[in-house]
Amino acid sequence: MLISFEGIDGCGKSTQSRLLADVLTAEGREVVLTREPGGSPGAEEIRRLLVEGAGERWSPETECLLFTAARRDHMERLIRPALDAGRTVVTDRFADSTRVYQGAARGDLRVLVDQLHGLMIGTEPARTFVIDIDPETGLARGQARGGTEDRFESLGLEFQQRLARGFRALAAEYPERVRLIDGRGTPEQVAARVRQAL
Amino acid sequence: MLISFEGIDGCGKSTQSRLLADVLTAEGREVVLTREPGGSPGAEEIRRLLVEGAGERWSPETECLLFTAARRDHMERLIRPALDAGRTVVTDRFADSTRVYQGAARGDLRVLVDQLHGLMIGTEPARTFVIDIDPETGLARGQARGGTEDRFESLGLEFQQRLARGFRALAAEYPERVRLIDGRGTPEQVAARVRQAL
Repeated sequence: MLISFEGIDGCGKSTQSRLLADVLTAEGREVVLTREPGGSPGAEEIRRLLVEGAGERWSPETECLLFTAARRDHMERLIRPALDAGRTVVTDRFADSTRVYQGAARGDLRVLVDQLHGLMIGTEPARTFVIDIDPETGLARGQARGGTEDRFESLGLEFQQRLARGFRALAAEYPERVRLIDGRGTPEQVAARVRQAL
Repeated sequence: MLISFEGIDGCGKSTQSRLLADVLTAEGREVVLTREPGGSPGAEEIRRLLVEGAGERWSPETECLLFTAARRDHMERLIRPALDAGRTVVTDRFADSTRVYQGAARGDLRVLVDQLHGLMIGTEPARTFVIDIDPETGLARGQARGGTEDRFESLGLEFQQRLARGFRALAAEYPERVRLIDGRGTPEQVAARVRQAL
């Protein structure tokens, strides 16, 4: 089973991915915890082109191709072999991030994003958790992290607000697969909401 | 007008691109000489992921996405603005390389390559010259160059032979656009054949 966590930068999805992987492991499952962009050696190299540098470094269309290339490599080299071996894969971001970041918030490319996904990836998670928080809180957390992976944070608060709306819209679009999780409170409180929704 | 040169590694197309650009410039045209993968700062960064490293570093599908990402950036940042300004663009490789390398010689992906090209690029050159040489000669020249850009040469002679067949088949598939040029003889002899065919 493939499970994804989604949401705006700084929403806490990396922490929640780890906490869910820990719980499932404790329950006796074989779990692979991974992330996008990245998750395989090749995809991690593509990641550097995507999350570092100036905001306008790539057009939304080129960005969409690079994310799909990284995802294809991640699927081939890590996710598909793990699923075939009966493992549970928990990923911090997957195709919904491309739908929201490139499909809705950076350009009006949703149709293109879905065509590219259908052509090159195809797979959807069995369950997706969107960790929903206030965009100002997310941006402040993302910026407080420091480091060089700040390309999307550099696009500003208005962009984060468009992202938050995009993720909420996804939960309405895919009610069977996507669960909107209230991201307020301690990590343990949020993790309990995730576990209940699974 | 967009003009592309194509062919196997070591066929002499970089030299021929330059010689044709010189001739057209001498005739009074504004000419932009470029190459793929690369040709714009972003695309050159993607190039490094493609032409260096182990042959099996990427699957043909991931490779196809990376080449298309580089081509999209090259189109947006260099080719399209130059054409819009009335310049002639001469490029050392374009979409036909993806049709032959990823579409025919590395995998049976021609339908996928064409779908991706239609979705993300669309443009075809006005004229394409395939410089046709013996694969053994091409491989020997490519290997003699040294350097780190030897990923495709590392796939061996049988691969070069499949490439040569693929480029010849393209000339038959697009008789209006693609011209097969005999690559034997001095660079000046080959350049005279190109000029005549233009």
